[in-house]
Amino acid sequence: MAIAPPSASAHRAARARLSELAKPTGALGRLEDLAAWLAAVQDSCPPRPLDRVRAVVLAGDHGVSHDGVSAYPREVTAAMVRAFVAGVAGASVLARQHGVSLRVLDLGVDDDLVGLPDEVRAHKVRRSSGAIHRVDALTPDQTQQALTAGAAIAAEEIAIGADLLVLGDMGIGNTTPAAALVAASLGVAAEQVTGRGTGVDDVSLAHKERLIDQALARVGDRADDPVQRLSALGSADLAAGVGFLIASARAGVPVLLDGVVSVAEALVAEDLEPGVVAWCAAGHRSTEPSQRLALDKLGLEPILDLGLRLGEGSGALAALPVLRSAQLLLSEMALLADLAPPD
Amino acid sequence: MAIAPPSASAHRAARARLSELAKPTGALGRLEDLAAWLAAVQDSCPPRPLDRVRAVVLAGDHGVSHDGVSAYPREVTAAMVRAFVAGVAGASVLARQHGVSLRVLDLGVDDDLVGLPDEVRAHKVRRSSGAIHRVDALTPDQTQQALTAGAAIAAEEIAIGADLLVLGDMGIGNTTPAAALVAASLGVAAEQVTGRGTGVDDVSLAHKERLIDQALARVGDRADDPVQRLSALGSADLAAGVGFLIASARAGVPVLLDGVVSVAEALVAEDLEPGVVAWCAAGHRSTEPSQRLALDKLGLEPILDLGLRLGEGSGALAALPVLRSAQLLLSEMALLADLAPPD
Repeated sequence: MAIAPPSASAHRAARARLSELAKPTGALGRLEDLAAWLAAVQDSCPPRPLDRVRAVVLAGDHGVSHDGVSAYPREVTAAMVRAFVAGVAGASVLARQHGVSLRVLDLGVDDDLVGLPDEVRAHKVRRSSGAIHRVDALTPDQTQQALTAGAAIAAEEIAIGADLLVLGDMGIGNTTPAAALVAASLGVAAEQVTGRGTGVDDVSLAHKERLIDQALARVGDRADDPVQRLSALGSADLAAGVGFLIASARAGVPVLLDGVVSVAEALVAEDLEPGVVAWCAAGHRSTEPSQRLALDKLGLEPILDLGLRLGEGSGALAALPVLRSAQLLLSEMALLADLAPPD
Repeated sequence: MAIAPPSASAHRAARARLSELAKPTGALGRLEDLAAWLAAVQDSCPPRPLDRVRAVVLAGDHGVSHDGVSAYPREVTAAMVRAFVAGVAGASVLARQHGVSLRVLDLGVDDDLVGLPDEVRAHKVRRSSGAIHRVDALTPDQTQQALTAGAAIAAEEIAIGADLLVLGDMGIGNTTPAAALVAASLGVAAEQVTGRGTGVDDVSLAHKERLIDQALARVGDRADDPVQRLSALGSADLAAGVGFLIASARAGVPVLLDGVVSVAEALVAEDLEPGVVAWCAAGHRSTEPSQRLALDKLGLEPILDLGLRLGEGSGALAALPVLRSAQLLLSEMALLADLAPPD
């Protein structure tokens, strides 16, 4: 099923209306682009308010986190899932600030998360994904299961009612498979995509780059196919993110992307189903080099550049009020023609 | 009266608490700097919510706007003041979005603004300020009157109750005196400070640069003194902005700056009363080159960079939710020590 593009006529109508607002031509800068994008994805000019915004945080562990690619132990992933359920994670605070519903979902956490609501584990694929420098992250069946889980999660959010979705991530070590997916998608070397993640030192950074290089060499041409790429170099949570983005775009519901993980997911989703990225906006410029490469390829420019490297959807959530500003300005500002004539 | 610095001990306490939050070290990027600044200016860690935010838009006309420095006629200034009163200007929309009280004040509009509430004109200094390439913008008495008016406006806002003030501007032609003030404050040439303002073409840009150069040559060493600089190269609205910033800093109330006009005001205010800038944060990177020069000198890094060139306080208002995020994260996020231990 091909993905329909956002409305070109609503986009044109938004550009025309922007030129009639009581302001110098182009004076709203990036807000004009965002307003026109919102009009296009809603097929409505002016666009409707973004009242119902729903965020999901896809959580998982990664085999590579046993190999010193993160400054934090893998047990932090499960502890952070509990912090999300308790509403005290960073993204929980931002979601509350902006009236956003936020769900954390365990796709591949290396913990049974005993005592948490069943809903959190309802889409779990496995405990941790494979260490990509040595083995495939997922079996082909698990990859399909994760893609389907992501689509189901999107469908659940959309069924409740969503003007916009936010895609976040949680998982110690997850910038390693994300960077590997970007490298394989773009055909670039490990050194171009490897970043410090949660903040590793120079020795660990060099080690992380070697692991990614090893993973890319191990997989070879199999990475040309986007589904095999996810199996070999991804993870349950990353594959679910891909499924989530494709399902959202098919349903015509826009998604605000966050850091390197969600942007890597968008890159693979666009390979798998061209047209996905037209339904996406980028919330925040990550400090990870692979995010910039992926955004450039996708033609997306982030709204914010605050040096965040928290993940969790935090950069997208922090950017949400700016996107809402774009909607409100296009809807509520006076037109030049309406300005009172001088006395 | 010397301006007291923000609290160093609250700043240290904020940095310590930031290092204990449930996140990688430094992972909140710029939000950590903003959170620590808020703690310092409030002398409170964690800082209190920014519930009471009040914005003022200082309006005025400028003699230079008869000389082709703007893409719009000067009558737009008065029409936009009416749009503010009607609540349909761009900044009105953003203020409403963020629950900010917004007042527009006529300091030097070239119009009697018949029919508008008296409050709008209560601080008016004159109708239009002088064309700075030919004459001084203000007499010495008018300069003092404008500085006092700005201080009175700040006092009015603070008396109602303000956790944060936003300083905006409205006035066709106002980027010309702002750029001249930045050039004179920093001792740089007209070509380094001249920008397109509302969007002038190359011919008008070259003309604008010549006018600024002519103004700087006309004034000479008199610009070394910050009050004489305001008289010679400023305007009633710009001098009021300087008075507003000094009074806010003296009262220990922080201010979020907007575009080139408010940043030029901060530069002169800091010369006049060292210590003002410690009470200021920068909301938005303007497209005007002089704003970057002034911010670098003041050591301020803007929160947003969206290519806005609307003025009106719009960039600061758009940045407000990010500042609020910084406050909330420092206050509400879990500590690492509080994370549930893994099963």
